This record gives sequence, structure tokens and C-alpha cells, in this order.
Amino acid sequence: MTAAGLDSGLLSPVRAGTPVEALVSDESWVRAMLDTEAALVRAQARLGTVPAGAARTITAVAAEAALDVRELALASRETANPVVGLVQAFTRRVAQVDATAAEFVHRGSTSQDVLDTAAMLVARRALRPTIADLDKSAEALGSSARAHRDTPMPGRTLALHAVPTTFGLKAAGWRELLLDARRRLARVADEGLPVSLGGAAGTLAGYLEYAAVDGAGADAAYPTRLLEAFAAETGLAVPVLPWHSLRTPLADLAAALAFTAGALGRLAVDVQTLARTEVGEVAEPAAAGRGASSAMPHKRNPVLSTMIRAAALQVPALSGALTQCMVTEDERSAGAWHAEWLLLRECLRLVGGAAHTAVELTAGLQVRPERMRANLDLTDSQIVSERIAARLAPRLGRARAKELLSRASAEADGSGRPLAGVLADLVPEVPADEIAGLCDPTAYLGAAPALVDRALGG
Amino acid sequence: MTAAGLDSGLLSPVRAGTPVEALVSDESWVRAMLDTEAALVRAQARLGTVPAGAARTITAVAAEAALDVRELALASRETANPVVGLVQAFTRRVAQVDATAAEFVHRGSTSQDVLDTAAMLVARRALRPTIADLDKSAEALGSSARAHRDTPMPGRTLALHAVPTTFGLKAAGWRELLLDARRRLARVADEGLPVSLGGAAGTLAGYLEYAAVDGAGADAAYPTRLLEAFAAETGLAVPVLPWHSLRTPLADLAAALAFTAGALGRLAVDVQTLARTEVGEVAEPAAAGRGASSAMPHKRNPVLSTMIRAAALQVPALSGALTQCMVTEDERSAGAWHAEWLLLRECLRLVGGAAHTAVELTAGLQVRPERMRANLDLTDSQIVSERIAARLAPRLGRARAKELLSRASAEADGSGRPLAGVLADLVPEVPADEIAGLCDPTAYLGAAPALVDRALGG
Amino acid sequence: MTAAGLDSGLLSPVRAGTPVEALVSDESWVRAMLDTEAALVRAQARLGTVPAGAARTITAVAAEAALDVRELALASRETANPVVGLVQAFTRRVAQVDATAAEFVHRGSTSQDVLDTAAMLVARRALRPTIADLDKSAEALGSSARAHRDTPMPGRTLALHAVPTTFGLKAAGWRELLLDARRRLARVADEGLPVSLGGAAGTLAGYLEYAAVDGAGADAAYPTRLLEAFAAETGLAVPVLPWHSLRTPLADLAAALAFTAGALGRLAVDVQTLARTEVGEVAEPAAAGRGASSAMPHKRNPVLSTMIRAAALQVPALSGALTQCMVTEDERSAGAWHAEWLLLRECLRLVGGAAHTAVELTAGLQVRPERMRANLDLTDSQIVSERIAARLAPRLGRARAKELLSRASAEADGSGRPLAGVLADLVPEVPADEIAGLCDPTAYLGAAPALVDRALGG
Amino acid sequence: MTAAGLDSGLLSPVRAGTPVEALVSDESWVRAMLDTEAALVRAQARLGTVPAGAARTITAVAAEAALDVRELALASRETANPVVGLVQAFTRRVAQVDATAAEFVHRGSTSQDVLDTAAMLVARRALRPTIADLDKSAEALGSSARAHRDTPMPGRTLALHAVPTTFGLKAAGWRELLLDARRRLARVADEGLPVSLGGAAGTLAGYLEYAAVDGAGADAAYPTRLLEAFAAETGLAVPVLPWHSLRTPLADLAAALAFTAGALGRLAVDVQTLARTEVGEVAEPAAAGRGASSAMPHKRNPVLSTMIRAAALQVPALSGALTQCMVTEDERSAGAWHAEWLLLRECLRLVGGAAHTAVELTAGLQVRPERMRANLDLTDSQIVSERIAARLAPRLGRARAKELLSRASAEADGSGRPLAGVLADLVPEVPADEIAGLCDPTAYLGAAPALVDRALGG
Repeated sequence: MTAAGLDSGLLSPVRAGTPVEALVSDESWVRAMLDTEAALVRAQARLGTVPAGAARTITAVAAEAALDVRELALASRETANPVVGLVQAFTRRVAQVDATAAEFVHRGSTSQDVLDTAAMLVARRALRPTIADLDKSAEALGSSARAHRDTPMPGRTLALHAVPTTFGLKAAGWRELLLDARRRLARVADEGLPVSLGGAAGTLAGYLEYAAVDGAGADAAYPTRLLEAFAAETGLAVPVLPWHSLRTPLADLAAALAFTAGALGRLAVDVQTLARTEVGEVAEPAAAGRGASSAMPHKRNPVLSTMIRAAALQVPALSGALTQCMVTEDERSAGAWHAEWLLLRECLRLVGGAAHTAVELTAGLQVRPERMRANLDLTDSQIVSERIAARLAPRLGRARAKELLSRASAEADGSGRPLAGVLADLVPEVPADEIAGLCDPTAYLGAAPALVDRALGG
Repeated sequence: MTAAGLDSGLLSPVRAGTPVEALVSDESWVRAMLDTEAALVRAQARLGTVPAGAARTITAVAAEAALDVRELALASRETANPVVGLVQAFTRRVAQVDATAAEFVHRGSTSQDVLDTAAMLVARRALRPTIADLDKSAEALGSSARAHRDTPMPGRTLALHAVPTTFGLKAAGWRELLLDARRRLARVADEGLPVSLGGAAGTLAGYLEYAAVDGAGADAAYPTRLLEAFAAETGLAVPVLPWHSLRTPLADLAAALAFTAGALGRLAVDVQTLARTEVGEVAEPAAAGRGASSAMPHKRNPVLSTMIRAAALQVPALSGALTQCMVTEDERSAGAWHAEWLLLRECLRLVGGAAHTAVELTAGLQVRPERMRANLDLTDSQIVSERIAARLAPRLGRARAKELLSRASAEADGSGRPLAGVLADLVPEVPADEIAGLCDPTAYLGAAPALVDRALGG
Repeated sequence: MTAAGLDSGLLSPVRAGTPVEALVSDESWVRAMLDTEAALVRAQARLGTVPAGAARTITAVAAEAALDVRELALASRETANPVVGLVQAFTRRVAQVDATAAEFVHRGSTSQDVLDTAAMLVARRALRPTIADLDKSAEALGSSARAHRDTPMPGRTLALHAVPTTFGLKAAGWRELLLDARRRLARVADEGLPVSLGGAAGTLAGYLEYAAVDGAGADAAYPTRLLEAFAAETGLAVPVLPWHSLRTPLADLAAALAFTAGALGRLAVDVQTLARTEVGEVAEPAAAGRGASSAMPHKRNPVLSTMIRAAALQVPALSGALTQCMVTEDERSAGAWHAEWLLLRECLRLVGGAAHTAVELTAGLQVRPERMRANLDLTDSQIVSERIAARLAPRLGRARAKELLSRASAEADGSGRPLAGVLADLVPEVPADEIAGLCDPTAYLGAAPALVDRALGG
Repeated sequence: MTAAGLDSGLLSPVRAGTPVEALVSDESWVRAMLDTEAALVRAQARLGTVPAGAARTITAVAAEAALDVRELALASRETANPVVGLVQAFTRRVAQVDATAAEFVHRGSTSQDVLDTAAMLVARRALRPTIADLDKSAEALGSSARAHRDTPMPGRTLALHAVPTTFGLKAAGWRELLLDARRRLARVADEGLPVSLGGAAGTLAGYLEYAAVDGAGADAAYPTRLLEAFAAETGLAVPVLPWHSLRTPLADLAAALAFTAGALGRLAVDVQTLARTEVGEVAEPAAAGRGASSAMPHKRNPVLSTMIRAAALQVPALSGALTQCMVTEDERSAGAWHAEWLLLRECLRLVGGAAHTAVELTAGLQVRPERMRANLDLTDSQIVSERIAARLAPRLGRARAKELLSRASAEADGSGRPLAGVLADLVPEVPADEIAGLCDPTAYLGAAPALVDRALGG
């Protein structure tokens, strides 16, 4: 068994082949670690503690180094993390080019600086397409909300028809939630991903010591200058303190990713509910092959929402475990740090895959106003009973209005006559056409259209 | 069995009797629901759809209503939520004072509007002391960080001595994490707690209908004006859309509370590690009775950090489940909404209790520089081996330096002689006093003091 | 604020007022702790290390002691657990009766022995009605399965009609899962709830020391005899070793309770799906008041399944956190033990409440065969397309059969003619009445009835 | 980016290269699915509904088919599961050999039958080495427990010295917990892994229909005979009912795996605690390269326990999410089923890797009785204060004994004199040598040695 077959996406269709998958692969983590090593030495060169030439050489070798990922993985068992092996392998490569430059690889550094910084780079790279995909879905849903601003459909609560709403408001709600997710991810991507730089135990001592050894001396401002130079070289943020044991960036990622999974999951289960055979108000986009069943030729399964929902069922647990890794002892935890990597990757991958899947879902979602209209009639105006009760109460008194309405419903049920007709007979004091109007579900949309405007205009 | 003994805090010492406990009690939820009902009718009165006198009456009755909480709880099984019963009981109270006013209670409204808005009020009330407590702890830790800016202690990674650090940097790190938590809680408290106002299915139809019935008419701006008036009356934020099925506020609370639990948990386990009998570098405040053991007269258990850690072990799971409740179908979920209440209360309560407990812990934490100093000597300068290696390498070459250092360590171990002496013999080319200096752990603090300044000054 | 209003069930309708609620209340935990103290001293008396009279006195006082639960809760903050305060208060009560007997309270013991044993007693008491309730639901579902063994209804996969099934098989499946839960709970209740007896650090040293002090001496068999006597007095099981840090009983409870929540949750969401307005194949029992909506007079909400589902959404997270508490350091963890209590209580309470709620749901569930029959016709025989394809393939070849079926479906859709008729025209080689038979959904139930027999007969 | 680099174990050292990794790889899942397809057709051939020759051909092709796993993964997005694509690819392979045999591939079946059965095969194959590894660890710990039956060490509670215990009892406890885990895994492996056989919607209709088409007819016993034949061909258990929506096997796996993670996690954190620099009572096995630090030459990090703990931090969350997937709607959930696969694989992999890692840890754990002995003296006999109090009380009265002991402790602390000496002066009525004996921590081991015998002998 080679590593090739360990994970090819087989058990996670939601992300198989989507852009995020490659961006968070083991190879991409190694790439980010090499980028980190190169950025670190360039930062040190900026400050004059490493020769510029060495930094150039190291950067060049890092750019083209193709380390054996499986070998690094196997070596990681020796030290419980993959950095020690990576540094050894990488240093050998550099030494093949320039033995002196090799002395400056990982100079003063520690595994966690490299792996944490690499994790931030991986996260940033993975969040970019995820955010872009949320934007695409939001745009598609915005169009749908505009188009169906006034399309009446049953509003449902606790699985039953409640009062009418519009599909536009439904779509505007989905969009709003995705935009909430987008804002949370963007906040983390923009401000919440700092370089990790602390050295062996978060005091930067190794960096300072080598700066002294290398003759540059290290004044009081050196730590801050090094942090800033490293941040500039990676494009990441500058932290207040080394965060080996202060896991704010991971917890923020966990929270934003769990939120996004929830937002996408809400979209997915709502689509599934509306796509049920008996409801039929929406259908997933019909693409060749999509949704075929191995047993039933007629089915077109809602596979996009199914995959998204599968992701939404997994992420909160993974994210919760990631958040729990904040509870670390010492200057580096013996286990809590090591538990983060897989959890972070899986959260990024599931959420990124789900966001990508949602683009296809929202862009091609088929909306069926005629089924919505038909469903509105299923309960023979009971869906507007709130309104009828409100309107009759001032004239008949609350109690009598309620009692009459119950009686009329029962009679309509029993006789098969429409409620409007029964009511007109029972309440002669209200004109029959007014009653007919009250019983029309399409005339009781409340502020649904106005809320669509509010959400889209904002 | 009366409700009195259901939960008196017995199983959750971390919050028993702390301020947050009362603020999130069932009674406080009922209070918040009554406040919500009153605010809603005042908002409607502002817009002229409810008589001002009715609003005054309802507000007055709400202010002093002492509903039977247990009765409401038992009644909640009829409808799966406590609002229906509360509205009935409250309406009866109002009717006893003014039958006409009673007509305007809960007018056009729905259970979820009331319960969600009340949840936001409860959350705001609970977050206030929690945030204040975090500030107190941050202040105490700031003082400790300043006082021990230069106090050397062993930095530890993977359970072993790594390189020296200072207790000031340790305390500054704890403080920074608590401030991160504080910022996240404050952001939610300030901007993330909106009123909930949607009516039966999120279209505001009931509110509009009653506005029409009550003769005020409802123009296109009415929904927005009602939202704003309701927000003004409660002091909560104005949402873009009704959020019955868009659970952003709950997810944001869950995330900020889990973060805070993690931050406090980090403090707690770190304190416990340093308080171990063999380490002894800190001790919990000595208060009469605190930490007594039922079996062992000599013990002073670290009970404050124990209680905090117990909270930190529970909250991430609760918070993850709360986040998962975002995945709701329809205009109101048949279960996901109902799962939120207990989870939210427990998160608020555990975190609020832990924050309160941390105030006592941080204010009275005993720091023992002499034990830190003694522990620094435990490994006979191995704690500065990083430095020695860095310093010897340029003179001896990396490989020989490393080999010499290993040999010296083994010889020191075997003979019981100090490493500095052994090294001085083995490396005659480096002056003995320079070697002695290199072997001094208190001289290898890196940027720890400067980082303290950076964190506190920022 | 008194403790009375902390938790009256308001936020957890699923268990408000159900039998389990009182059985796991703080008062019941105090009761179980007092029972434990009494059983311990009786066990010591059995072995002759405590005077029989003292044991009688202590048992008598324990039986009627009504300690102030809130006071104990507040005192628990001193020691991070409620036992120290309880022992003090209880000892005072005993001393008021007999000062000598008071010397023998909690003799040689430690807080964890008492709290863990009490937890086992509480669990056993709470599991009893939970198991009985599962039996009741299983019986009701068994009757339903028998009655509807042959009642055809649509089988649904990925939210769409798949092939027909019978309601009997649906009900038999629900029953089977509840019985699986019942077996897992019963296994834990019968074998998995041991006494906890270890003394200060799990060596029983205190018990042995006092046995020596009290003149009985303690031979090599004393530890085993004490364990067995204590188990006999409590009716709990005998553990192999003291389990202060070996949390098997808690993890087993967590697993069985999470399983039960899942089983009940499956029942609940399936009922909700079938109860949807558009589906209408089942309805929750119609009881006065049940399911009323605060806004919509016509609704009868599926509140029983809603409450059960709310529990099912919470328990897995709580149970997972409880399982994680297995990861304890030392002879007693500084926090992991303390995190268990609330989680265990909440799991017991939510599951017990959900099981109780399911009894009402399953006993009164309304089944509507006519709606099932009508829904079977919704897709115009597409629900049996698997069968048609299977039957045509041997005669026409797989490819042509599939192509014909697709063509026929499209034509039927377009023209509004029944699929059977279209097919009969397109496939003249198959007699029309045979095609009509193939298109009859009620004739394609597979082994559903036989599987009902298999499940019920087994 | 090829699939090769998606996951090579880089982010999960605990399982990189361990036996379980290959057993649960995507390739192994495909292998299990092919084994399932072959077993199914052989089962049908046993019952005479498929020609024996076709079954032989299909089995032979399945045995050597090397499908492109990545291609299957990418195709899985079309249907939200990998089976549809696999059946197509596999059928093509069979058709190349024998077109008639190809007609019998997946005959009457459905994706879930294949994937669920394959999951059970994968689980069984992964559990085998996991259980064997637990046995090896238990054996090593048994030896250690025997060897150190009487080796005194400090018992610790809430991070502080409590009373003495022996390392033998510590090791016996670790062993007992691993055996508990082993029993739970074995129970699932032996009885809890059934074949999945239900057809399109759990009625077996497709199987029966093809049996009829294929001329064998299908009597009332056919379903049971098919279940049994399929079970016989796979070596898996026979379920009572098709379990597409009754997820008992997955929930049982989740529970047993979470338990095992917890048991191993307990071992890991306990080892780490004892391995701390200041404690030094155990050390991880010294293997070349193991535990090297990238920054600190002197360190030998406890990397084995670190990796195990990292697994233990992740599994409960994953397992909880897996359990939550029990809450499925319909005859096949649109998402809950799909969420299981990754979670199951990760649980199997983390637990299997952790169990394998524990073998090395337990076999080579270095135990340092001399450090245990030295640590026992750290508190100057306070570790036996329980005993002293117990012994003095009968002679001095409880109150005076306690007061004297406190005074003596304070005086010993202040003066630096040993407690035994101070006590001897303060309590002249007790002979000094008796006091010296009471103050000896190695003489207060309680039943620790006897408990070791009890655990090992049992």
C-alpha cells in the first residue's frame, strides 16, 4: 500500500476534486512549510543577521524542492510532528547547492513556528476560494430573491403550514446567512491569521542568540522588527505575542468555519425539504448523471444538498474539538497542539467543498411557483386562519370569532365545501367577497416582499 | 419533589452562587419574556397601533408579575415551548387590571419572537458581569506580568524543560488570551444581539394585520419602523431580517463563549501544572476552607482552577451542539430551535461562573520565584543547551559542537559534576567564565521581558 | 434569587415534570450520597470494624436527614465538590443524636467514593423508568407494526419516493432500534454500575487504617470483603479495581444514553417527515391543548416529536464530552472528574424525558393508510420503475428496456396519460394487463410483510 | 495535484505507517466494496438465482480488479456516493471477460447495501490489529504491575500528593482500562458487524424481483436465506432487519472506539504527568531519533504519549458526530448516511494508530523507583498525614489530634526539622519510634499490592 490510496476523496464526495482539496493536501502543507522556512530566512536577512545570498539560495531551493511527502509523514512519528524531518531533508537539499547557506536554514527556530505559520498560509489559501464561492452563491440567491420577491409559497413551522410567505424571502434569508458566514471568514482571513514566531519556548531566545552569534547584535527592538519582517515576507498578520500556547487563531478559524458549515447546512436541509416528492417546490439542477440512483431509474436525487448537509453534520464536532485544543498546558502542549492539524484541515476541506457545491446548487436551483401555489391550497385556507381570526375578532369578539372559526373549519372538513363558503354562511354580517378575500392565501404575504427589498438593498 | 431541588448548583460548583447563576435562571428567563412582551406593546404604541394606555398598563403588570415558573414549565410540554402558557397567564393578569388592555398582549406575535428576544436579553445581562470579571482578571494578570517581567522560570514544552522564560511572559500570555475572549464577548454583546420579530412565519404578517385592524394602517415602512421601535424599547440591535431560521446570534454567542471557556481553561491547566507538588511555582490563594480535602488534612487543593477546568471541558461540546442548531429546516425548525435554550443557558452559566472564579484565582495567585529558580537548576544547564550549541557551533563547527555537548552531558550525568565544569575541560578554547555564563539559565531569557512590555504597553 | 427558580424545567419541556426529572434532581443526588454514607458504614459494621449500633444510628439519621441543598451547593465552591460540606452537615446531625456514632461517619473515606457511588445509584434509579418507557413504546410500535404489516406506503430515500414499503416495516424498524437501546441501557444498569471505593488515592489505605485503629485488624482479604459488603449494601456491582481514574462506568453510561437518544431521535424525525402537511401519513395524538400554536389557531404541531428531537440534538455532544472525561491524569483528576456530574445528569434527564415522551407519541400515533395510498400514486408508477425495468430487461435487453422506460416516462409526463397506458402502447409484446400489474405500487412490497414477521417473531 | 499528496499521514503522526492506516485507506474501501459485490452474487448463486459460473467469474474479476480510486472519488460527486461509479466500472471489467456474467453484477442491489457491508468489512479488518495491540499493551502493563507491585510512589489527586500508592497499582489500572476497551471492541467485532441487505428502500424488493425474473421464484423464506447466505459469504453477522436507517452497528463502533481512545488517552496523560522534568518517575522508551527536538539537543520528548493524547482529543468529537448520524429520516437519509464514512474511517484510524503506538510505549516504558522514592519525601511526611491523623485521634481525640498535627506541620515547615521529630516532641505519649513508623510513606501503601494481585489474578 502506497500513500496514493490513503485518501483520494472516495469517502468525502463533498470535496472530491473541488479546488480546496488540493489547497489543503499534505503536499500543500509541505509547500507552506517550505515557504515559511524561506520567508523566515529572508526576514532574518532583512534585519542583517543572515547573509542575503544565503536567503536567496534558500528561497530558490525551497521554491523548487519536491520533498517526498510520505517519507516525511513516516519520519514524523519520531518527533510527533513533521517539521523535524522536513528541516533535515530541506537542509540537505540546500547543502547540495551551498553548504554555507544550509547553516542558515531554520536558524534559531522551532517546529511550532514553522508548522503554525504554515497552517496560517494553508488556511488563507483555502479560505480564498471558499469566500469567492460564498459570494457566487449569494449573488445567485440574490437574483432568485429578486425574481421571486412576490412568489407566494407556504411558510412552514414545526413541519406544518403556518402562514404564507414568498420564495423571495426564503432565498433572501439563505443569502443573508451565507453573507454572515462570508463576513466571518473574511474577518479571520484579513486580520486573524498571524505568523507564529517564538522559538523553543516562546521567548525568541534562539533567534536573538543567533542574531548575536551572527554578529548583528540584537537590540530591544529586534523581536518586534523580526516579527514584522516575517509577517511582511509571508503576508500574514503580526501577533501581539508568540501564540504557541495562546491558540486564538485556531479558535477563530474553528468558529468561522463552523458558522459557515451551519449556514450552508441550513440552505441544504431547506432545499431538501422543498424538494420532497410531495412538496416539489424546488428541484436541484438537472445535470447529466447528477443524482442518478443505482437501483431506481426514475430518481433524480438532491445530491448537492445531500453532500452539503453531510459536511454540515461533521464540521461542528470537528470545530468543537479544535476549540477545545485551546486548553493547553505549558509553553507547548504535549498533544493538544498535535490534535489541531487534522481537525483544521478537515474543517477547511469540508467547508470549502460544501461552499463550492453550493455554487452549483444555487446557480441551477429550479423553482416551481405553480407547485407553491398548489400547496398553498392544500389546507383550504387554514394557512390564513391567523388573518381570519384577526379580522373577525373586532366584529364578533375574540371568543366568538375563535369559536366560529373552529366550527367553520370542522364543517368545511366534513362537507368538503370550501371554508370561505362555509364562513360566509356562518357570518352573514361580513360580506361574502370580503371573506373570500380574507381566505386568499396569496393576499396574506405580510412584509415578505418588503423584507426582500430590505435585505437586498442593504 | 418540588422544582426547588431540581438544580441548586450542587453539581456545578463553578457557578453555584456566582452572579451569572441568577441572571440566567428560569425566573430570569420569565422576567426577560415579560420584559419582551411589554417592550413589544410599547413599540406598537409608539407607532400608534396600540393605545398608549394599554401599553402602560401592560408594562406595569409585566413589571410586577410573578408568574409561577414551575407551572409554566409543566405547561410547556403542551406546546414544546414555554411562551404559550406564559402569554395565557400574563394575559389573565393584565385582564384583571384592564380587560381592554389584555387584548393587546402579544398582539400579532408568535412564541419565537418572544423567546428569542428574551434569550438576547438574558445573554446581554449575563455577559455584562462576565466581561467585567475578565477585565478584573486581566488587570490582576497585568500587575503580575509587570511584577515578574524578569522573574526567570523554566519554559516547558511537551512536559519537559525547554529553555528559560519569565513568569511575566507567562502571565502576559494568560492576560492576552483573556483579553481576546473579552473582545469577542464584547463584540457579540455590543452588536450581535438583535430583537427577534417575525410573526408566525417570519413575514410580520400578524403585526401588519393587527396594525390594519387597529386602524393605523401599515405602510411600506411599517416593518422597519416596528423593528426599530422594538429594538429601541429593548436596547437590542436591529436585525436585517427576521431570524427564526437564520441563527446567527446564537452561533455567535456559542463561538464567543467557547472561546472564553478555552481561554480560561488554558489559564487553569497552566496554573495546575505549576502548582503540582513537585513543581510548586505557584499556589492558589489561601483562603479559609478553600481547597480542604475530606481525607487529607495537609492538602490545599487547587480548587479554583479545578472548577474552571471543569467548565472548560464542558463548554466546547455544548457550544458545538448549539452551533449545529443552525441547520434548521422551514420557517421554524421542529426541534433545532428547541434544543438551543438549555445549551445557551449552560454555556452562559459555565463561562460566567468560570470567569468569576478566575477573578479570585488571578487576584490571589501566589507566585514563588525561589521555586522557579530552583527548578531552573534541575537539569544542570541542559535547559540552556540550545544556547550552548548555538555558541559553540561557530567555533567548533556544528557537528563537533553537538558531539561535544552530548559527551559533556553524559559525563556530567555520570560523574555528578556540573556541566559547566565538564564543558570547560572539554572545550579549552572557550574561557571557563564564558562557559559559566552560557550555562546560567537566568541569562538566557530571550525577549521575554521585552515581550511583556509589548503586551502590556499595547 | 433563591435556588427555587434556577431550573424548573422551563427551558427543557422534554423532561419537565417527567418521572426522571425528580430522580436526578439535586435533592436526589443528596439522597443518594446519604444512602451511600449509610451503606458504607453498614458495610464496615458487617466486617466488624464499626459498631453495629453506630451503623444503625447513622442509617436512621441518613434516612430522614433533609439537608439544605442550596447551602451544600454554595459550600461546594470551597472544595470543588459537594461531599465535604455534606459530610460536615451530616456528621453534625448524627452527633446531635449520638456523638460516638458521629465518629464513624465517612470513616476512612474520600469525597469521590461517595459521589461516584451516589452517581451510580442515581443512574440506576433514573434508568429504571427509562427502560420501562422504552418497553412501552416498543410494545405500542409492535402492535402498530402488526396492524400495518401490509399497509403500503412510499419508501423514501434522499427525500424522494424510492420504492413502496409498508408502514408495518417502518414501525418494526423503529421498534427494533428502541429495543437495541433498551438492551444497551439494561446491560449497563445490570452489570455496569459498580460501587466506588478507593479512599484518598485508590489504595483503600484509609479504610484499612481505621480498621486497624478500630481494632478489627485488616487481613489480606479485607479489601475484597469491604468491596463486596459495600456492593451488597447498595445493590451495586463489585468493581475489579477502584475506578477514581478508570472511568469505565461513566463512559458506558454515556454510550448507552447517546445510543438511546439517537434511537428516539430517529423515531422523532421520521414521524415529523410523515406528519408534514403535504405528506400527512401520520399525525401526533390529538390531546386537548397539545400542539397549540400561539399565533395560528388551526395548527396541531407535532410537539412530542419536536421535544424528542430537541433532546436527540443535545445528547450526543454531552455524551461525547462525558466520554472525554476518561482522559484523566493522576489518581484523581483536577477537573475531568468535576466535569462529569452535570453532563451525566443532563444526559439521564434528556434521555429519560425523551423516552417518556415517546410513550405518548407511540401509543397515540395516528396512522393514515388512505394518505399513504394516495401518495403512492403521486409519481404515476415511477415508484415502481425499478420493478418495471427488472421485468422488461430480460425480454427487451437491458439497454432497450431502459431507453423505452425513459421514453415512456417522458411521454406520460408530457401528455398526462398514465405510464401504464403509454408503456402498453410502446411495448406491445407484453400484455397490457401484465403491464398494469407491474405498475401497481401496492403489488411491489418486496419482503416488507415478511420482515415485519421476522422482527416481531424473533 | 494528484490524489497521491492528499493525505500521506503528514498531519497525523499517530497513525502514519501503522498497520491500520492501510487497512482503512480508500483503496481498502474499494477492495471491501468489490469483495461485497462478489459475496453478494455468490450468495445469490447459493440460492440458485444466479448461475454459479457467473458468480465465479464475478468473484475472479473482483479479486484482481484494480479500479482507479481517484476516478471513483471524482465520479462520486454525481451521486453523492462512490458505489454507482464503482458498479459501472466493475461491470465493464466483468463484461470484458463475460458479458452474460456482467448482467448479474449488483443484481437487485442498491448503493447502501454495498457501502454499508464494505464498511463492516473495513471495520472488522481494522479492529483485528487494534485488539491485538491492546492485548500486547495489556501484557506489558501486566508485567510492569507485577514487577512494581510493591514499588511505592506518591498517589496524586487534584495535582497534589495525596497518599502513597504503588506503581504496580498504577500500571494495573492502566491495564484494566485497556482490557475494558478490548472487551468492548471485541464484542462489536464478534457480534456487532452485520451485512447490510435491503435493496432500494429496505424491503429487499429488488432482490426478490430478480429472483423471480431469474426463474428461481422467491418463497417466504427467501429473504432470510439470502441474508444468511450473504452473511456466510462475508463472515459478517446476520441482522434482524435491513439497517439502512437503523444505524446500530455504526453507533456501537463509535462507542467502542471512543472508549478505547479514552482508555489510551488516560494512559498517555498519566505517563506525561509522571515524565515531567520535575517528577521524572517514568520516561518514554529511548529509541534512536525518538523524541528529538528541532531546537533543543538535550530533550527526549514523550512523543509516543503525545501522539496518543492527540488521538484521544479528537476521537470523542468524531464519535459523537457519528452517533448523531443515527438521527436519520426516511428509508435512507439525505446526508446523515453520507456523513458517516469519513468519521468512521478517522475513528478507526486514530484509535488503531494510538493502540499501535501504545505497544511501543508500554513495552519500553522506563520506570524509576528511586525518583518515586525521592518524591515521596518531598512533603516531609505530609503525604501520610491521613494516617497520622487516624492514629492520633483515638488517643488524643479528633480535635486535639488535628490541631496538634497542624501545629507540628507548621513548626516543621518553619524550622526545617522533620515532622516526625517535631511530632515526637509534641506528643510524648506516643513512642518516638512509633511516630517514625507512622511517618514513613513506604509503610502506608494500603491495599495497593493486594489490588494488583486482584486485578492480575482475576
